Amino acid sequence: FHIPVPNHFISNSVSEEEFTHLKEAYKEHKEKVKYLLCGHVHSRFVDEVDKIPLICTGGGGALIEDVSLEVKAYDVEHHMVHFYKEDGELTYRFHDLDANCYGKEASDKVLKNKLEEAIEGELMAHFKYAMFADRAKRRGMEKIASLFEALAASEYYHARNFYSILERPLAFRQEAGTFIYEEKFEYEYLYEMMEKYAKEKKMPLSAQAFKSAAGAEKVHAALLKEVQQVETFSIDTIYVCPICGYVMWGDKVPKRCPICGGASQQYEMYE
Amino acid sequence: FHIPVPNHFISNSVSEEEFTHLKEAYKEHKEKVKYLLCGHVHSRFVDEVDKIPLICTGGGGALIEDVSLEVKAYDVEHHMVHFYKEDGELTYRFHDLDANCYGKEASDKVLKNKLEEAIEGELMAHFKYAMFADRAKRRGMEKIASLFEALAASEYYHARNFYSILERPLAFRQEAGTFIYEEKFEYEYLYEMMEKYAKEKKMPLSAQAFKSAAGAEKVHAALLKEVQQVETFSIDTIYVCPICGYVMWGDKVPKRCPICGGASQQYEMYE
Repeated sequence: FHIPVPNHFISNSVSEEEFTHLKEAYKEHKEKVKYLLCGHVHSRFVDEVDKIPLICTGGGGALIEDVSLEVKAYDVEHHMVHFYKEDGELTYRFHDLDANCYGKEASDKVLKNKLEEAIEGELMAHFKYAMFADRAKRRGMEKIASLFEALAASEYYHARNFYSILERPLAFRQEAGTFIYEEKFEYEYLYEMMEKYAKEKKMPLSAQAFKSAAGAEKVHAALLKEVQQVETFSIDTIYVCPICGYVMWGDKVPKRCPICGGASQQYEMYE
Repeated sequence: FHIPVPNHFISNSVSEEEFTHLKEAYKEHKEKVKYLLCGHVHSRFVDEVDKIPLICTGGGGALIEDVSLEVKAYDVEHHMVHFYKEDGELTYRFHDLDANCYGKEASDKVLKNKLEEAIEGELMAHFKYAMFADRAKRRGMEKIASLFEALAASEYYHARNFYSILERPLAFRQEAGTFIYEEKFEYEYLYEMMEKYAKEKKMPLSAQAFKSAAGAEKVHAALLKEVQQVETFSIDTIYVCPICGYVMWGDKVPKRCPICGGASQQYEMYE
C-alpha cells in the first residue's frame, strides 16, 4: 500500500477501519502473508502489526526526511529492499544506494563548487524577487507582487534542491543548536567590529545597519536557546519589525521598535 | 503635516474633506501662507495645490522609494530643505546629502566587501531558517515553524538593509528588465552546461537539480517579459511546485508537475 497501515512510528497512516477491511481480506490466507509493505514516508522503518512484519520504505530520489525522534533523516540512505529466499524462507535486506545519496556527489570538487555557486545565485535571485514583490506591494500592484512572490518561492526551492545534494540534515534538535554559534559570532565579533569600523570611517548607514543586525541576532540566539527544548517551547506570537528586522514577543511588545523606532502597527506577526 | 494633502502625484493623501478644514483655517491668512509642507513619502516632490506651492519631503535615513512613474527613487537623494530669504522673499532649495546617501558608502572597498559578505551571510541564515521552518511544519510543530519563519524574515530584512547601502533601486520597469538576462544566462548556458557535466560524471541528483532549475528559469524569463507591460499584466493565479520550484498558471495547470511529477494538490498558490 502507498500510505502505511497504523503502526508504532508515525501517525500519518490509513484509518484503523480501512486496515480492518484489509485484515478481513487476507484473513483466510494469513499464514501466507509474510510481510506488509508500505511506502509514502521519505525514509524507512520496520515494525510489526497484526503479528506480521511491516516494512515501510520510500523516498525515491526525494530528500530523506525525519520520521520521528527515533527515525532520523540523518541515519537513512536512499535504498532498495532486496527480497530473496534463504533456506526456503522469504527474507530481505536493505541495500543502501549510498553512492547515489545526498552528500556523496560533493566528492567531485568541481561539482561541489558549482553547486555552491548555484545556491548563492538562487538565493540572490530569491532575495531580489522578494524585494521587488515588497516594492510592487507598496505601490498597490497586487498582481505583480504575487508574481514576484511566486518567483521568489521558486528560487528558494531551487536553492534547497542544490543544497540538499551537498548537505544532510542533522537531527532536529542538533540542527537547532548549530544556528546559535553562527548568530553569536555575528553579534559578538563580526558586526560589532564592522560597526566600529564604519563609525570611524564616518559611514553612518553601514554603522547603523551593522548595529541593528547585531541587536537582532542577539535576540535570535536567545530564542534559539529556548527552542532547543522542543517539547516545552511555548512562545505564541512573534513580531518582526520590517524596517530593521528586530524580533519581539510576549505581553510587553513595545509601541516602537527599540532598535529603529519603527511603529508597532507595521510589525509582522508570526503565530 | 505628516501625510500629504491631496496632490497630483500620489493617492496616499489625507481626504479632500480634511483638506477643506485646513483651507478654512488658513483662509483669512492665505496671503501669508507661502508654502505647504508635507512628509510621509520616502522621496520628494514639488506640486501646487490651492494655488500654494506644496513641498513634500521625507525619507530620513530610510530607503528612498518610488513615488510614481514620474518620481523615481533612482533620481532622489537624501536631502534637507533649506529655506532662506532672497530679496525679502522666502525661498528654498533642496540640499542633497549625497555623501550620506545609499550607494556612496561602497566607495570604501573594505566596507563594500564586508557588506557583500554580510548580505551572503544573512541570506544563508534566512535560507536555513526557512528550510528548518518547513521541516518543523512537516512534523506538525506549528509554533516552532512560526518562530523560524519569523527568524527567516528578520534575516531577510537585515540582508535588504545591507544591500540598500550598496545598490540604488532602478526605476520599476527597468529593474524588472534586468532580471531576464540573469535567468537567460542560467538556463541557456550555466545550468545546461552543469547538467551535461553531472550526467557525464554519473551524478544523477545534480543532473536532475540543474535540469529542473533550468526548466523553471525559462518560464521565469517568459513571465518577466510579460510583467514589463506593467499596466496590462493580468495573470491571476500562479502555482509553484514545492518539490522542484516549477511555475505554472492559466486554465490548464497540469495535474502533475511536468518537471518532477509532483501532484497538483501540493502546489502553492500565489494570487
